[in-house]
Amino acid sequence: MDPLTQYLEQHQEHFLRQLQDTLRIPSVSAQPQHKGDVRACAEHLVQHLTRIGLTRAEVVDTAGHPVVYGEWLGAPGAPTALIYGHYDVQPVEPLELWKTPPFEPVIADGKLIARGAADDKGQVHMHLAAIEAHLAVNGRLPINVKLVIEGEEEVGSEHLEQFLRSRRAGLDADVIVVSDTSMLGPDQPALTIALRGIVYTQIEVTGPARDLHSGQFGGAVQNPANALATIIAGLKDADGRITVPGMYDRVRELSAADRASMAGIPFDERDFLHESGAPEAFGEKGYSTLERISVRPTLDVNGIWGGYIGEGSKTVLPSFAAAKVSMRLVPDQDPEQIFQAFRDHVLRLAPPGVTVKVGDHHNAAPFLTSPDHPMIRAAERALKRAWPKPPAMLREGGSIPVMATFQKTHGLPSILMGFGLHDDQVHAPNEKFSLSSFHGGTRSCAYLYEELARPAAG
Amino acid sequence: MDPLTQYLEQHQEHFLRQLQDTLRIPSVSAQPQHKGDVRACAEHLVQHLTRIGLTRAEVVDTAGHPVVYGEWLGAPGAPTALIYGHYDVQPVEPLELWKTPPFEPVIADGKLIARGAADDKGQVHMHLAAIEAHLAVNGRLPINVKLVIEGEEEVGSEHLEQFLRSRRAGLDADVIVVSDTSMLGPDQPALTIALRGIVYTQIEVTGPARDLHSGQFGGAVQNPANALATIIAGLKDADGRITVPGMYDRVRELSAADRASMAGIPFDERDFLHESGAPEAFGEKGYSTLERISVRPTLDVNGIWGGYIGEGSKTVLPSFAAAKVSMRLVPDQDPEQIFQAFRDHVLRLAPPGVTVKVGDHHNAAPFLTSPDHPMIRAAERALKRAWPKPPAMLREGGSIPVMATFQKTHGLPSILMGFGLHDDQVHAPNEKFSLSSFHGGTRSCAYLYEELARPAAG
Repeated sequence: MDPLTQYLEQHQEHFLRQLQDTLRIPSVSAQPQHKGDVRACAEHLVQHLTRIGLTRAEVVDTAGHPVVYGEWLGAPGAPTALIYGHYDVQPVEPLELWKTPPFEPVIADGKLIARGAADDKGQVHMHLAAIEAHLAVNGRLPINVKLVIEGEEEVGSEHLEQFLRSRRAGLDADVIVVSDTSMLGPDQPALTIALRGIVYTQIEVTGPARDLHSGQFGGAVQNPANALATIIAGLKDADGRITVPGMYDRVRELSAADRASMAGIPFDERDFLHESGAPEAFGEKGYSTLERISVRPTLDVNGIWGGYIGEGSKTVLPSFAAAKVSMRLVPDQDPEQIFQAFRDHVLRLAPPGVTVKVGDHHNAAPFLTSPDHPMIRAAERALKRAWPKPPAMLREGGSIPVMATFQKTHGLPSILMGFGLHDDQVHAPNEKFSLSSFHGGTRSCAYLYEELARPAAG
Repeated sequence: MDPLTQYLEQHQEHFLRQLQDTLRIPSVSAQPQHKGDVRACAEHLVQHLTRIGLTRAEVVDTAGHPVVYGEWLGAPGAPTALIYGHYDVQPVEPLELWKTPPFEPVIADGKLIARGAADDKGQVHMHLAAIEAHLAVNGRLPINVKLVIEGEEEVGSEHLEQFLRSRRAGLDADVIVVSDTSMLGPDQPALTIALRGIVYTQIEVTGPARDLHSGQFGGAVQNPANALATIIAGLKDADGRITVPGMYDRVRELSAADRASMAGIPFDERDFLHESGAPEAFGEKGYSTLERISVRPTLDVNGIWGGYIGEGSKTVLPSFAAAKVSMRLVPDQDPEQIFQAFRDHVLRLAPPGVTVKVGDHHNAAPFLTSPDHPMIRAAERALKRAWPKPPAMLREGGSIPVMATFQKTHGLPSILMGFGLHDDQVHAPNEKFSLSSFHGGTRSCAYLYEELARPAAG
């Protein structure tokens, strides 16, 4: 065993403790009451970066939550990797479904349980551990690294582009590295070559000026909650196809070869369904489950509310109802164009007697990279060294809005090398990260820096 | 001015203060945290009944909230009126929309503002004031009275029937009197000869076992919130007609004469719409607004919820979504039959991939009485004495579940003589009761007892 690998093995407990310290900070970016916690997490990470030997580490203010920046540039002539991650996390509600408190990390059955364990603090810490190991063992890294760890990924990375543009010269690099994606199974690593984009909207329906008595007024004025249901029902047909005009115009249809290649991916549909807990698969007619979650656009209600939602019954005709509706996009759909078409369609679907507004929470373009790029090949070699099986080349269903941003600001090849598992319950109660993912992921990052330093090989 | 009327005039402030004391007790029957307040309100009323001179007054326990019972039977040979009202009130949420605290009654611009001011504590207190005045002025009432003031009207009067049956002999009467309905305008009294029934349901849709990441799972499993929208949208067509099979089979269609008579009622549609604050009227095609709120059945979502409803965005595919849906019924629809048909229809509308349950919160049959009954004629005379205009004969859109119960347990003629106004905001924030309604209503009740004692006249 080489000294680097040996060092990583011997310091597993140490790296885990470091991750747990970061997980204890409730850096929920969506909720104003956690604003101070988000900043505290950024400051904590900067101290950590300094401690492990980065030559520069700072909290950079934005108009929203701060960005953590760190760098080590002691390998002149070697490539430079811009390593991206995020330290903000999703809200934890509904709290009563958590078996242990979300910000008190617990290790049980080979898993670390906490909000952010997999998404994305655990994956950020793999890189921090890999960097620490290289510096401890060799006194240097094989490549130059620039770390950008943002605090707004879970709310659409609104201010990141401005940060990247304002420091563009200082952020020059040869490759982008992101660890915020999933493996295919506990011993099956993966490289993600495509991500879905997203358009996240809010539909607000207003009818009467106040909540009305459903007996005195029912039947004579439009009910905003009924109207909202009519709108949402009209967004998809019975075959699971989205009815927004132009929705599929720019969707790349799969070639027979593409479909054959996807069918060859060791994707276990039964496992996937079991993890979801849904009674059966359901989606767009004519496509497989794997295709539906990777190469096809989707439309989902993320939240809906209106009227009396307490215990018992209240005979009220609500004045207001709303829904959060998001669409996942695939190449070559354009988020701005899809949002406009969606908004027009919603307004057309609105029945008479209500006022309808459609707002845009955030959006991101879909992402696609070539599996044959030398940087992807380097990542492939790193993963082959770290895991028993060679990596699968995946198209992920999720969105990392910043990938589209990086393509705009940097136009660089991007390595999406993540170690989450489908049952990690990210964005849900009881989020976990497998220790084997964490340790294997740390090894993979350490090897990736070495492989990126080698001349491109087949 | 006769001594009774004079006494009522002189004691207006006194009667108002008594009502305010009752309004201060937050007797919200739907919310478990107010259980003790509901009982406290019952005990407060019993003390009040004793103080004003009823010969019997007691809190009667039921399996739910208690009933307040009181009687004065000192007029042998005269008719006996069973006077019904309720002391429970609707929930006050959303609290932030109240301009003054809901349980701190305030008088402003000739209006008393508080939860329950009009529905129904204010109308109960009109009878208590009328009884107090008769006993103070004459030492007796012209008729015998039995007061039944229940604590579960706002949650479906679940245990009232059992109370009425268990005391059936002691509750013998000649007429039922209920003051829980509306006038047509500030100086236009009304007698309600019909009420709509109700079926109040809850639809619960479950999909995945937990909230899922909408990127990882979106497109491949059914979304319960989308499914719920599809179900609700399928319950009515674009013409506002309910699609539940058999819904209209037993609805009495209006004769040409009925429609002409209704068209003659001084109903101001512009006022009605203005009070609702809705941008325009909307309802079942082929019927007027007045017909839609009185002689036609309705279907309304009272509340809907599911997924992430906090600030900002969360990319979640919810595991659960639900809606409270109520239908108003008209003669001769049967609540049990309509509930079954509704449930079957909802289950048929449910798309694949989710589990759907339909529950029954409460229901009540529609009510209809003849305008020519001698007891109704007596009420008409009382109202003619108390107000400048003769009463209109109305079909109300709301439901008083207990009317159906009384028809089952007593089979008696019923006088629905109420003094609410359409802009009283009952069931909504800032509920009010006009002082002119309260005082005119009190006079009307006092005269009603006199008129009921007179031999039937034309």
